[in-house]
Amino acid sequence: MTRKRGLLVALTFTSALGFNALVAAQTAGALPSWNDGKAKQSIIEFVAKVTKEGSPDFVPPAERIATFDNDGTLWTEHPMYTQLAFALDRVKALALQHPEWKGQQPFKAVLDNDLEALAAAGEKGLVELVMATHAGMSTAEFEAIVKDWIAKARHPRFKRPYTELTYQPMVELLEYLRANGFKTYIVSGGGIEFMRPMTQTVYGIPPEQVIGSSIKTQYQIKDGKPELIRLPEIDFIDDKTGKPVGINMFIGKRPIAAFGNSAGDQQMLEWTGAGSGARLMMLVFHDDAAREYAYGPANGLPDTKFGTFPQSLMDAAKARGWVVVSMKNDWARVFGFEK
Amino acid sequence: MTRKRGLLVALTFTSALGFNALVAAQTAGALPSWNDGKAKQSIIEFVAKVTKEGSPDFVPPAERIATFDNDGTLWTEHPMYTQLAFALDRVKALALQHPEWKGQQPFKAVLDNDLEALAAAGEKGLVELVMATHAGMSTAEFEAIVKDWIAKARHPRFKRPYTELTYQPMVELLEYLRANGFKTYIVSGGGIEFMRPMTQTVYGIPPEQVIGSSIKTQYQIKDGKPELIRLPEIDFIDDKTGKPVGINMFIGKRPIAAFGNSAGDQQMLEWTGAGSGARLMMLVFHDDAAREYAYGPANGLPDTKFGTFPQSLMDAAKARGWVVVSMKNDWARVFGFEK
Repeated sequence: MTRKRGLLVALTFTSALGFNALVAAQTAGALPSWNDGKAKQSIIEFVAKVTKEGSPDFVPPAERIATFDNDGTLWTEHPMYTQLAFALDRVKALALQHPEWKGQQPFKAVLDNDLEALAAAGEKGLVELVMATHAGMSTAEFEAIVKDWIAKARHPRFKRPYTELTYQPMVELLEYLRANGFKTYIVSGGGIEFMRPMTQTVYGIPPEQVIGSSIKTQYQIKDGKPELIRLPEIDFIDDKTGKPVGINMFIGKRPIAAFGNSAGDQQMLEWTGAGSGARLMMLVFHDDAAREYAYGPANGLPDTKFGTFPQSLMDAAKARGWVVVSMKNDWARVFGFEK
Repeated sequence: MTRKRGLLVALTFTSALGFNALVAAQTAGALPSWNDGKAKQSIIEFVAKVTKEGSPDFVPPAERIATFDNDGTLWTEHPMYTQLAFALDRVKALALQHPEWKGQQPFKAVLDNDLEALAAAGEKGLVELVMATHAGMSTAEFEAIVKDWIAKARHPRFKRPYTELTYQPMVELLEYLRANGFKTYIVSGGGIEFMRPMTQTVYGIPPEQVIGSSIKTQYQIKDGKPELIRLPEIDFIDDKTGKPVGINMFIGKRPIAAFGNSAGDQQMLEWTGAGSGARLMMLVFHDDAAREYAYGPANGLPDTKFGTFPQSLMDAAKARGWVVVSMKNDWARVFGFEK
């Protein structure tokens, strides 16, 4: 057999048998951090259906789009969104250059560690914090700042880098879907440029498959070198009704599977579910104060400003057949560092 | 040999030998519609360099991003942009529902086929035409309208569907790059939702690799069904300085190769060239009135409003080592339908 002939045989053989054999291999022993139950079963049945050639539910690989919220769906969002922790740390780091912040809200609240005053500043205050810490530098400079912070910052409860606070069952789910020909996307209310420096490493998701909120950037030539400068102006909010908008803008296809954990994800799941053919919509419910956090206010759990899961969302999930994942019952372990 | 063993051997064989063998196979006889010369040679040498493992110029596949302008780079843009022809046809199709257009510019100009009055309406008039014809329906409805038009419309000179007026050498270039592990993107001033219904078929580029100008969309529930409604409001102009902005937003990586044909592409080529490592920047120059069109005003060719190639761009190309492709000399054939 010549080398060329061998290659042809190998390619033919791989395409004819390889894919199905790989799929079968992936299903046995798949999702080891998921307990047996309705949630795990829903995933495996859905994937089996849409990947079975000749089945009425078969979906060609190019259409196997799965979208994932990030905060609270793929990694921890309590006691506050990781990006908010970043913004607060940046305010402190930049305070010396901004003596006026000592007397100016919401900056004063941050410097005083006064979370009540910070909450009182509301969304307007939050936007001010983001603009003061996320704008005014080039995209390359911002990326370096994020990378530096994420390497050094530690979660207040778990005392570990935030990148270790990804949910092991969800990382397995991402890998399982990709092994079955899916393209996995993040669709998050978080900042697109805040997430991109880490998504490839922690989730196996490349920058071009990350959709998020953004501020405007401007092309400038500085010392003969082109730069994109981050402006203190909101460009796009990728949350609630913004999620279907962002999905349509970036992907131009409707997902067949969508995963979220809060009211911010409802429209993404609605949009996904409104397509024809087999669909999988899933919500992670944080009911595990021992291993992670418990919040709702659905099902009588404590209310929260970070990743609110209202009773109306729980009711919508039941009415529409969306799968609600109980972190406590459905996950054998939460984090990869657990033994 | 068991089936499983066979699969393993096949996979190993393919990954060990397959890729390099494929590359070699792709280089001999590659780009058949390109004449031998500097342009073709630049492409082949660049691809050989960045794909050679162990070479200092090697670029891993995930970073092999190539961006292409569409109008005038991948398909004909004269006597006017295809999307403008679409907008004019839509005005005529909708005129019965808008009796007021008979006395109202720029619509009157369109209905009277008065290109002079249309030109006088300028950019403001153009935006009005786009809003009247591209907004006010759902994304699904717009897609259906575009598909219907593109199936029926014919180019005034070539009397063929616009989708046949793609440049055969560029289609081969797209395929050649993909065969060498590149991810190919369109980065066009044209409308993202106007291009997406055809790019997979004519260029092998899926919707998620199409970046373009856009109008805003709004998520609405109509009769219990979610829809994205196209609003008469500009969202993003993916032209000139907008191209690096769009590339950064959608891809989050800097291209290593970029292809354009007009002043609207200069910043994309600058942005691409400003990265470190091997780069390829290329401009198609329309100097072939016999087979297609000839326009500049660079090199003394006639000036144009569609795809202007000013002398300053020609000078910049020379100064920066960007390759200028002479359609007349570098392309053995222009269109796929030529014998």
